[in-house]
Amino acid sequence: MTEAVGDFGLIGLAVMGQNLILNAADHGYTVVAFNRTVSKVDHFLENEAKGKSIVGAHSIEELCKKLKRPRRIMLLVKAGQAVDDFIAALLPFLEQGDIIIDGGNSHFPDSNRRTQELAKKGIRFVGAGVSGGEEGARYGPSIMPGGNEEAWPYLKDIFQDISAKSNGEACCEWVGDEGAGHFVKMVHNGIEYGDMQLICEAYDILHRGVGLTPTEIGEVFEKWNKGVLDSFLIEITKDILKYNDPADGKPLVEKILDSAGQKGTGKWTAINALDLGMPVTLIGESVFARCLSSIKAERVRASSILDGPEIPPFSGDKQQVIDDLEQALYASKIISYAQGFMLLREAAKEYSWKLNMPAIALMWRGGCIIRSVFLADITNAYRENPELENLLFNDFFKSAITKAQPGWRRSIIKGIEWGLPTPCFSTALSFYDGYRTKTLPANLLQAQRDYFGAHTFRVNPEFASESLPEGQDIHINWTGRGGNVSASTYLA
Amino acid sequence: MTEAVGDFGLIGLAVMGQNLILNAADHGYTVVAFNRTVSKVDHFLENEAKGKSIVGAHSIEELCKKLKRPRRIMLLVKAGQAVDDFIAALLPFLEQGDIIIDGGNSHFPDSNRRTQELAKKGIRFVGAGVSGGEEGARYGPSIMPGGNEEAWPYLKDIFQDISAKSNGEACCEWVGDEGAGHFVKMVHNGIEYGDMQLICEAYDILHRGVGLTPTEIGEVFEKWNKGVLDSFLIEITKDILKYNDPADGKPLVEKILDSAGQKGTGKWTAINALDLGMPVTLIGESVFARCLSSIKAERVRASSILDGPEIPPFSGDKQQVIDDLEQALYASKIISYAQGFMLLREAAKEYSWKLNMPAIALMWRGGCIIRSVFLADITNAYRENPELENLLFNDFFKSAITKAQPGWRRSIIKGIEWGLPTPCFSTALSFYDGYRTKTLPANLLQAQRDYFGAHTFRVNPEFASESLPEGQDIHINWTGRGGNVSASTYLA
Repeated sequence: MTEAVGDFGLIGLAVMGQNLILNAADHGYTVVAFNRTVSKVDHFLENEAKGKSIVGAHSIEELCKKLKRPRRIMLLVKAGQAVDDFIAALLPFLEQGDIIIDGGNSHFPDSNRRTQELAKKGIRFVGAGVSGGEEGARYGPSIMPGGNEEAWPYLKDIFQDISAKSNGEACCEWVGDEGAGHFVKMVHNGIEYGDMQLICEAYDILHRGVGLTPTEIGEVFEKWNKGVLDSFLIEITKDILKYNDPADGKPLVEKILDSAGQKGTGKWTAINALDLGMPVTLIGESVFARCLSSIKAERVRASSILDGPEIPPFSGDKQQVIDDLEQALYASKIISYAQGFMLLREAAKEYSWKLNMPAIALMWRGGCIIRSVFLADITNAYRENPELENLLFNDFFKSAITKAQPGWRRSIIKGIEWGLPTPCFSTALSFYDGYRTKTLPANLLQAQRDYFGAHTFRVNPEFASESLPEGQDIHINWTGRGGNVSASTYLA
Repeated sequence: MTEAVGDFGLIGLAVMGQNLILNAADHGYTVVAFNRTVSKVDHFLENEAKGKSIVGAHSIEELCKKLKRPRRIMLLVKAGQAVDDFIAALLPFLEQGDIIIDGGNSHFPDSNRRTQELAKKGIRFVGAGVSGGEEGARYGPSIMPGGNEEAWPYLKDIFQDISAKSNGEACCEWVGDEGAGHFVKMVHNGIEYGDMQLICEAYDILHRGVGLTPTEIGEVFEKWNKGVLDSFLIEITKDILKYNDPADGKPLVEKILDSAGQKGTGKWTAINALDLGMPVTLIGESVFARCLSSIKAERVRASSILDGPEIPPFSGDKQQVIDDLEQALYASKIISYAQGFMLLREAAKEYSWKLNMPAIALMWRGGCIIRSVFLADITNAYRENPELENLLFNDFFKSAITKAQPGWRRSIIKGIEWGLPTPCFSTALSFYDGYRTKTLPANLLQAQRDYFGAHTFRVNPEFASESLPEGQDIHINWTGRGGNVSASTYLA
């Protein structure tokens, strides 16, 4: 008879899965490993897993037999059908109270559905976002679990043991109901898209505008990594820019094709923002920037057809441009996170989730791709006031953005003058200037909609009158022609 | 026995429906009118429809009995369930070959489905986008029909009769299979969102930046309407800005609440662009601008908390700022349409539709909300070369945007200096500068993805070597730590 020795089961031995297993084993857990292509299990056992508290399974049945109850089985497989297939394959071998954790990048509505369906069968489902890449999975990722809260007491110790720590606090806390864990991971990834694009815009200006070499830019990033931008992504950018191709000693980054994919979670975040009506513009632009990068052949043709300003050989104060860019990056980042938290706040309302904002900031503080000193400041802001309406209303960030403004504005102007695209710097600034505007020109837009489509408008309360009553849908016959029928049931 | 006198049936007597009926009657067709709330039918017959070739129906059955075969019945009801409900209610009274036209703003996947489902029942379904608002419906809208092409010979005459004309050509042509008509209408509406937001940005700069009154700005728009911007939306903006509240003689526009809705087709366009991976950034930003406008109460709070530049009393050359803005609006508009046609091109590929680009430009040329002289130039561009890869590659538009660039760049810089948001001007310029860039900084982004997630990258062919082979997915161990497992099946 197979003995139930395993504390934790894991299905899917790609890089994240292998590393999470090794991580758990390091923390004293006995892990049972399974993979659809079973030869991978043996290879893993004979190599990376050798000598560790890791046991192999050659079938789903064997995996389940080798686990203590309630079974805790994590899937790290491709999001989508594969998750449903493995759940279906597991069910015959599971018992009431067993726990399935989906650690992949599943779309949160799928996790909503799986939580509900499995609860009916007595199985506790957890959708857990896991971030940190190879290194994070191996030495401490950020883990964002949500779903059936009954599972949490059985997962808390192992998840908090294997997760990253920030000032002694585990970067893993219960996020909320159903798909809330995957939702928070999705927004994390969206923010990651934004952070990466912001770095690319700074790099581009330093490279094509100021004329610095990758090594020199690497030094700029190294210095930035000691200031307000101190973060994993700035750090690896420094490493990347300083990495030379061993074959010829030239910077490898300049040999890489400038064409990026975007079919995943960044896109979902932007779509969700549109669905919830939240202006998460920076993530949106970062996804579109990837789309634009991916039509490389068309861009190459366009580059020989379309005109722009000549970039003059740089003259002036390089350090000023560099310092301005640091502020542009910092301010844009503040906007991006403010937008991300606006989306979280709206999602909590829309989906009736209780989201723990300080805990979310803490989970992103360490272990994951967007980890940064900056997130400690966000954690502090939400700990000071968990009901904070907007990150920008917090004194620390308000002051930071006030200070950053002149350099932020100058950087974008430089980009415009040089013909270098700064979609994310620019959208962040437009958002900031729009957000702090009491009266936007949308009054004209509402007038247009009423003019051509009888869509009606409302009066600004300070100008309400007998003929323009407050809180009512008003239609004006702007031309003297046309009818008086309003378009209440018809969208033009 | 009820006599089949009707050429055309129409269900839904909101503003668009009533006006389309009157329009068809003016062209000699006998129209049978029905509405769920039947009292509306009688009211319509006794008033607007009096003395015209318009017949009422008090039930679906009566409507069908009064129509010649093959019956042609148009629905102008709220998109969504109402359309399915009316189709279900019609089916028992229809015969093989009858035609149902959905003239509302249905989402194109619904029209795909309805075309297929009804074809199985021998009923021909047409999803027709109709644009033009009240006036257009009454005196000549733009009509964009797609779906079951068998229906087209029975619709062509009436649709082309009632549609707008542009230089004698009807602004109605067959668009393509299934939901293609509603798709093209969706993109039209997305572009409409963009055009409106661009006008708002120009208005805002003239208003808050230059300090002009609405009446003065109205005069600027009146002048613009005689140049390259000549269009319906510029024309009505002039009317709106010059319209004073009869109660006190003050500009009405300034009394309208600056909070705009965005739950419809603009959002769908942006989501579709994300789904198809096309950088339709201007429509995206215009939707988000509406989202930002709609959180008015939060903005009012933000306006008293967040700092920005003081706008100085205007000094300098007003006419220069006005002329620059005209160019900014024009160039941004060119970008928006170029992006819209990129989306159409990609959709044709993705959904295997044959889209007739010159016909689409022609349909938008007259009748609809985005009608403009500009669209004649687009029609010409696609007639010259129906396979045109990008609108910007056409000589006319290439020259136009080259000429517009200095003013476009100066306008955005003015906005930045004054702290006035220009999300759509800015995103258009970033797109332009990115689109004409041979090598974008996405090389760094790909390096980052490979660094933290083993996502692999490709080499730029001009730098291919033995260790960096062309066309292959390459993973580098950037740190000397970590494993050699690539993340091919796992999204970080």
